[in-house]
Amino acid sequence: MDETALRNLLQRVVRGTVPLDEAVARLKEAPFEQLGDMATLDTHRALRQGMPEVVLAERKTAAQVAAIARRLAAHGPLLVTRLAPEKAGVVRRAVRGSTYDPVSRTLRRGRMTIPALGPVAVCCAGTSDVPVCEEAVATLEVMGVEALRVYDVGVAGLHRLLARRHELTRARAVVVAAGMEGALPSVVGGLVGRPVIAVPTSVGYGASLGGIAALLAMLNSCSPNVTVVNIDNGFGAGFVAGLIARG
Amino acid sequence: MDETALRNLLQRVVRGTVPLDEAVARLKEAPFEQLGDMATLDTHRALRQGMPEVVLAERKTAAQVAAIARRLAAHGPLLVTRLAPEKAGVVRRAVRGSTYDPVSRTLRRGRMTIPALGPVAVCCAGTSDVPVCEEAVATLEVMGVEALRVYDVGVAGLHRLLARRHELTRARAVVVAAGMEGALPSVVGGLVGRPVIAVPTSVGYGASLGGIAALLAMLNSCSPNVTVVNIDNGFGAGFVAGLIARG
Amino acid sequence: MDETALRNLLQRVVRGTVPLDEAVARLKEAPFEQLGDMATLDTHRALRQGMPEVVLAERKTAAQVAAIARRLAAHGPLLVTRLAPEKAGVVRRAVRGSTYDPVSRTLRRGRMTIPALGPVAVCCAGTSDVPVCEEAVATLEVMGVEALRVYDVGVAGLHRLLARRHELTRARAVVVAAGMEGALPSVVGGLVGRPVIAVPTSVGYGASLGGIAALLAMLNSCSPNVTVVNIDNGFGAGFVAGLIARG
Amino acid sequence: MDETALRNLLQRVVRGTVPLDEAVARLKEAPFEQLGDMATLDTHRALRQGMPEVVLAERKTAAQVAAIARRLAAHGPLLVTRLAPEKAGVVRRAVRGSTYDPVSRTLRRGRMTIPALGPVAVCCAGTSDVPVCEEAVATLEVMGVEALRVYDVGVAGLHRLLARRHELTRARAVVVAAGMEGALPSVVGGLVGRPVIAVPTSVGYGASLGGIAALLAMLNSCSPNVTVVNIDNGFGAGFVAGLIARG
Amino acid sequence: MDETALRNLLQRVVRGTVPLDEAVARLKEAPFEQLGDMATLDTHRALRQGMPEVVLAERKTAAQVAAIARRLAAHGPLLVTRLAPEKAGVVRRAVRGSTYDPVSRTLRRGRMTIPALGPVAVCCAGTSDVPVCEEAVATLEVMGVEALRVYDVGVAGLHRLLARRHELTRARAVVVAAGMEGALPSVVGGLVGRPVIAVPTSVGYGASLGGIAALLAMLNSCSPNVTVVNIDNGFGAGFVAGLIARG
Amino acid sequence: MDETALRNLLQRVVRGTVPLDEAVARLKEAPFEQLGDMATLDTHRALRQGMPEVVLAERKTAAQVAAIARRLAAHGPLLVTRLAPEKAGVVRRAVRGSTYDPVSRTLRRGRMTIPALGPVAVCCAGTSDVPVCEEAVATLEVMGVEALRVYDVGVAGLHRLLARRHELTRARAVVVAAGMEGALPSVVGGLVGRPVIAVPTSVGYGASLGGIAALLAMLNSCSPNVTVVNIDNGFGAGFVAGLIARG
Amino acid sequence: MDETALRNLLQRVVRGTVPLDEAVARLKEAPFEQLGDMATLDTHRALRQGMPEVVLAERKTAAQVAAIARRLAAHGPLLVTRLAPEKAGVVRRAVRGSTYDPVSRTLRRGRMTIPALGPVAVCCAGTSDVPVCEEAVATLEVMGVEALRVYDVGVAGLHRLLARRHELTRARAVVVAAGMEGALPSVVGGLVGRPVIAVPTSVGYGASLGGIAALLAMLNSCSPNVTVVNIDNGFGAGFVAGLIARG
Amino acid sequence: MDETALRNLLQRVVRGTVPLDEAVARLKEAPFEQLGDMATLDTHRALRQGMPEVVLAERKTAAQVAAIARRLAAHGPLLVTRLAPEKAGVVRRAVRGSTYDPVSRTLRRGRMTIPALGPVAVCCAGTSDVPVCEEAVATLEVMGVEALRVYDVGVAGLHRLLARRHELTRARAVVVAAGMEGALPSVVGGLVGRPVIAVPTSVGYGASLGGIAALLAMLNSCSPNVTVVNIDNGFGAGFVAGLIARG
Repeated sequence: MDETALRNLLQRVVRGTVPLDEAVARLKEAPFEQLGDMATLDTHRALRQGMPEVVLAERKTAAQVAAIARRLAAHGPLLVTRLAPEKAGVVRRAVRGSTYDPVSRTLRRGRMTIPALGPVAVCCAGTSDVPVCEEAVATLEVMGVEALRVYDVGVAGLHRLLARRHELTRARAVVVAAGMEGALPSVVGGLVGRPVIAVPTSVGYGASLGGIAALLAMLNSCSPNVTVVNIDNGFGAGFVAGLIARG
Repeated sequence: MDETALRNLLQRVVRGTVPLDEAVARLKEAPFEQLGDMATLDTHRALRQGMPEVVLAERKTAAQVAAIARRLAAHGPLLVTRLAPEKAGVVRRAVRGSTYDPVSRTLRRGRMTIPALGPVAVCCAGTSDVPVCEEAVATLEVMGVEALRVYDVGVAGLHRLLARRHELTRARAVVVAAGMEGALPSVVGGLVGRPVIAVPTSVGYGASLGGIAALLAMLNSCSPNVTVVNIDNGFGAGFVAGLIARG
Repeated sequence: MDETALRNLLQRVVRGTVPLDEAVARLKEAPFEQLGDMATLDTHRALRQGMPEVVLAERKTAAQVAAIARRLAAHGPLLVTRLAPEKAGVVRRAVRGSTYDPVSRTLRRGRMTIPALGPVAVCCAGTSDVPVCEEAVATLEVMGVEALRVYDVGVAGLHRLLARRHELTRARAVVVAAGMEGALPSVVGGLVGRPVIAVPTSVGYGASLGGIAALLAMLNSCSPNVTVVNIDNGFGAGFVAGLIARG
Repeated sequence: MDETALRNLLQRVVRGTVPLDEAVARLKEAPFEQLGDMATLDTHRALRQGMPEVVLAERKTAAQVAAIARRLAAHGPLLVTRLAPEKAGVVRRAVRGSTYDPVSRTLRRGRMTIPALGPVAVCCAGTSDVPVCEEAVATLEVMGVEALRVYDVGVAGLHRLLARRHELTRARAVVVAAGMEGALPSVVGGLVGRPVIAVPTSVGYGASLGGIAALLAMLNSCSPNVTVVNIDNGFGAGFVAGLIARG
Repeated sequence: MDETALRNLLQRVVRGTVPLDEAVARLKEAPFEQLGDMATLDTHRALRQGMPEVVLAERKTAAQVAAIARRLAAHGPLLVTRLAPEKAGVVRRAVRGSTYDPVSRTLRRGRMTIPALGPVAVCCAGTSDVPVCEEAVATLEVMGVEALRVYDVGVAGLHRLLARRHELTRARAVVVAAGMEGALPSVVGGLVGRPVIAVPTSVGYGASLGGIAALLAMLNSCSPNVTVVNIDNGFGAGFVAGLIARG
Repeated sequence: MDETALRNLLQRVVRGTVPLDEAVARLKEAPFEQLGDMATLDTHRALRQGMPEVVLAERKTAAQVAAIARRLAAHGPLLVTRLAPEKAGVVRRAVRGSTYDPVSRTLRRGRMTIPALGPVAVCCAGTSDVPVCEEAVATLEVMGVEALRVYDVGVAGLHRLLARRHELTRARAVVVAAGMEGALPSVVGGLVGRPVIAVPTSVGYGASLGGIAALLAMLNSCSPNVTVVNIDNGFGAGFVAGLIARG
Repeated sequence: MDETALRNLLQRVVRGTVPLDEAVARLKEAPFEQLGDMATLDTHRALRQGMPEVVLAERKTAAQVAAIARRLAAHGPLLVTRLAPEKAGVVRRAVRGSTYDPVSRTLRRGRMTIPALGPVAVCCAGTSDVPVCEEAVATLEVMGVEALRVYDVGVAGLHRLLARRHELTRARAVVVAAGMEGALPSVVGGLVGRPVIAVPTSVGYGASLGGIAALLAMLNSCSPNVTVVNIDNGFGAGFVAGLIARG
Repeated sequence: MDETALRNLLQRVVRGTVPLDEAVARLKEAPFEQLGDMATLDTHRALRQGMPEVVLAERKTAAQVAAIARRLAAHGPLLVTRLAPEKAGVVRRAVRGSTYDPVSRTLRRGRMTIPALGPVAVCCAGTSDVPVCEEAVATLEVMGVEALRVYDVGVAGLHRLLARRHELTRARAVVVAAGMEGALPSVVGGLVGRPVIAVPTSVGYGASLGGIAALLAMLNSCSPNVTVVNIDNGFGAGFVAGLIARG
């Protein structure tokens, strides 16, 4: 029951064409549709100040992704994640003006125009973590938030990280991706006074257990400003950092 | 080498009482002390806009906690976490004006005066999760951030959560604590457009594995605005939420 | 907003004392209260045909349990689970006519009167599993469902189980508790054509991992009529079996 | 030894053509064949009111599946699960009138005619969980039980689930499949007064651990009417729900 | 139905006092009782050539253990395992002539007289493993099998083990208990041509995970004559070794 | 130093061509060669009463396996395990008279002639476990021990197992392979008075964790005559059972 | 800020072209560049007495590896690890004089000339562990440290290891690689008075869990001179052993 | 057979009082005693250049520890580890001149006099890790190796660690203990060109899993000079570092 339907019903009660008891009964049944209605308003709000729906291309066919992407792109900025290169052509042709980046495996078009309080820094320990970082960067850019790349600053060579400290302190939030021992978020967390979103990556072998070692390390960080997302979840980290940057 | 020492050295170089080569050598050795110096400045900055050092009382004796707490309380607001009731008396007597809360097991005095953009909501699924929430609330209050308690709104009775939706949407960030299946952060994440800091709790038995089940659930949340901290880490969740609320 | 309030609002619209626009606005805001309303009706329904709220005494003080139990007992049958013997006296005195069973660690009073299609059999492998079974039996009895005890019928002595086959086949559902290797539900599942609710117990040592071994075995049962609840969750198993027995 | 053989033996004892001692000896040896006999009767009973044997095609060649399926189809309804598309042609040709569904990867023919008390609802959180749901639906349909599909109602968008509440409350049992954080069964469990059979799916990545995260969440559900089957086990969930629906 | 009852039934059929149809019906019902009967015979056989029922005292009260032990001791040799010292007095008084050993935590009386083909060697890596070994030794002695103790021969000092080689080669089977890295069974397995029953012990700390490290090591032994029992299961290892020694 | 060299050295001491001090020195250095010598004798003994070296083909090239197999086949019976079909041709051609079995993936020639006390039964729960069983059977046959196949007797249809009880009781040891919940060894262990060697198989999905569920179940068996080998280790189980059968 | 820049700054202060206050300010900002400077010196030192940067080829394209390798080879010895054979040609052509070894999957050129105190022994249990050992050997050789290969000395045939004892005792450190039960480091640790670097390998199946079983065993070694590196990390083990051998 | 016995045997062969064949036979049997003999020499060597036997007091009674300690102290320096305070008095009285340290829970007397090439640095992240460090320090001191304490230098405040860099670079080996995320060894490893022995500690809660998180992090260190010992194993770390420091 949307607002128009509700208004019509009440008018009929006023006019006497619908008895009061029947109106009570129908309104008692209605709320979920109304909730649906509000949820739709929520979606509009999300579109305005948050993020339009993002397409996770994994486990979908190129045709399915293309259809969904085209529909979403009609209403605002578009972001497709985890899009394998072999599916990208079909989707790019379906959405005129979209661009595909094979490193982050994202496809996008447009960006939101909500002002942010400042940039987000996106760091990683090694070059193998770059694809996860780039997914975060793509997410931030679609959200209209500036991303500062601070890559290849692993803890075994601290001077590399310390040399980039000014970029870190400019940021309103910091995304830090790391595989193997996952130590970088703790070190970064000690250098900045902002929230650090840690992303464990599946980079490593043997006892890295596909990223579990890094995940556990990050959850146990001695820096209290560190929170954690799922392994390789660059999108989630970028999204939360973007929300923070907007204030 | 602090600023005075540096200034003295340079003055001596200018005066010629220290040869240039020796100054070069001493300055090459100096940076760590200087870093130490800057780190101290960082501490000051943290005090001003972040959070003074927090005392984790676990694994410390009452006397140790009292000594540290007294020293810290001399410079600003004080927060002691995980303070067992049997140690609280000693510490409270050591810090005049401090108050102890046995539910959150925190002791504190004073609060910071940094303005925040808005409140933080703190939710939990069941009453057993309340101590973890109260640790987050205590942290927020010492940070000077308003905390909105939304307790006992577990997903098995959705209407309780939906009835509190207006408080959730007022918040700049939401802390959500839950044990057992850890589903609440996903549901809250779907209702708000702000970052959700999920805290798995050790509430449960058997296959809850001391909170691991809730932790895994939260890391796999289908709501992209959810990040996660360690099991029972109410302090960390409150701290990050407080940083976000300050913008 | 309950039915009376809704009716009043509509009457005022009809009378013209509330403008139609305002009524639309208030009704759009209302649904959660209405949902709350319906949820309350759900509770009534649950009371009538399901199960009144059950008190999990673990992590609650004797006084807290007593207060909650007294309130609930005013509206219908009462079941308190995981009530340690040292707390039982306080609670029993608070609820006149209640009885405490130290084996199942349950306290109860009264039973529901919803008719069931038939009994539920409750089996276990060894005597150490009996407390879990008795929790299921207590739950069934409060639900008003007959429970058939088939105890100590572990798979290492099949004849004991086969000798009780007639009881198993009489049941509308079978609860099977087992620790160690957790094999009993598969064997029972092969003997009956009804749902089997398997309860892994924490009975065992070493590689039983506190019941995880039995849990995994039950989840991998080759009998397709087996479903599983959490370790030592006799209440949950009894409750689901009771729902099934009611048809 | 079936009933005829037993009768013949006893007649020979009466006639004196078999000495009493020999009859005692043969009867002492006999019970397993008799048990075998009864088990066969069980099979007949299962066929009549339960479920004929189901073929799990995984790890079998197309030729093996075809041979087994043809034999089973001669005696009643047929269900083959986990049949890869590349094997389906051979099997479909072997069983005249059978149909193959590539989404659920099931092949079937016919359905049972045992009356049920009502329908079963089959829900899932996301579209990636649909194949598991469809396996449950196929199982229910072969059992002759009506299945109500309630798909794509994940907890991050509650209004979608609440809008389908009427279908859920019509059902005698609800199958709920979910990957990632596995929260949906708890939410559904709180909305209905019937048994919920939760199916964790392997949908997810990283810390989802191939479905273990969802599995643990479901085992720890705060809704007491939830029981759990193995990861991706749509058949098992459908089968148990079908048994419940028959009452 | 035991042999006498069966004989009586058949005699009545012959005499005509029981109609043939009734006899068929009763015999069709009988097998489980008959199976029970045979199982009873099995027990007798076990008593004769195997092992009488053993009492696991863990999780039982002293009174329960005493009652069971007295009953079993009336029929043959007695073995009680995992009997805590504080319960031992009650049980020892209940069974005249029994002896309690606080190291193995076993109580026993008598021994079986089945001849064995040779002795069993019982080895362990360190002195902390001795209680587990002594449980195996007690089991062997009650079975009437000679046990050769080869203790404190850990792999970090190979000469100790090699010096005891002659005892190992005399044995028909070898029980090897080890905690920590659990390497001893592999080394022993390479020295003897007999079955090695490996018992992981919970001796260790940290990454020994309560014996899981040793358990995994033993399951992966490069000596093909090694099989494994549960952590700390000295009884099981001794029992299987005793069965092997009997040939 | 072999026996000839030792004899020569002593003769030279007697003759006085080697001084006694030098002989002492050389003999003090010698033991490892002597140990080597004895180890060689061990090998001979193993060949005579145990098992010649077995070739594990996994991770070796066809050429490597062929070379090793040809060398070993020159000295006695040959067994090659885990030989993939695509490598089998090369090896079979290298060893005249050898036969390859694609089910067990073994290649062999000849058999040992050590007499055994009786046969070994080899059981499995389902047809997917047959390859593991056949590896055990091949091992037993090369050892010259009779193997009794008791296949497809899973616990969900007990009558199948009970009907084969006579074969089980004839055996001196029983190998039991099972995947999924791994319940069969416990049931078999309760039926026989002989050692049961349990082999968990990797048959299953989801929470079977590649055989870990079955492994844990077997380690926790309530039948005390069950010992366990590694997942899918049919060779090891057959080897130990063969050693037991030889007495 | 490197030494030249620092000298220039100070000279300008002396000359008066830079005010003292500005110099203080710039020097306070400078340390990280200075640290970078020192870190560069560290690199030089590492080159002189440690190890030049090593290229991990995994997850890099042949072209990327070739470019990095050519650049590094211009400054000293070169080591590339985990270089798949199909990428080796490109890299070998890029670095004139380099050699590729397909067993260790390393490519290298040159060696360091730092004197060592003695050799390093590199042991393994079986031939499947040889590739990991050869990676350690290649690392040692590039470091200019002599490597003694002691291969195929698994604990199931101790005489093989004992026969090589003299090589072990010559070594300044011992690298020991083993899969399956990972017992070899403990045994070697008991034979030598030098550090043992244990490398678990992923050789094994089933309960070896991809090397976790061996890893746990090594961490629990009863020989106190054993330390452990990641699964299959031959490079790390060789590197640490090389550092130790240099004294 | 020791050297005297061997010499006697050979003399009797020369004299003809022992036939040559008998001597051959006895010498073939002898080697293990000879090996035992050499092992004894090894012990002497260990005493001279390594470490006398260390007493692990855990799981031993005070009386047992006292007896062993007194015996060992008669032959050289003494180290007892993991000695609980309540047992310390008995042991200290048994060994005149011994001292007990309640922080490291070690008791010792004397120190070895083997010269070392330089000191060992012992670092830790937080004050809760100090007991583990002090166990390493005690071990080093008994070995006669200088220990440099570098405590409370966790990665969340890098300046503390960098300020201590000169001590780190003086050391021949570095022991690094850390709980929680276990990041410190990687950072230290990047600062020094010497072996780093990492000790995970059980300091932490929730997802630290009793030190497993730190252990995994350390095994995955991106600094190649890091090796790892068991959780809380300060003794092992100190011992290996001491061996390295001796060159």
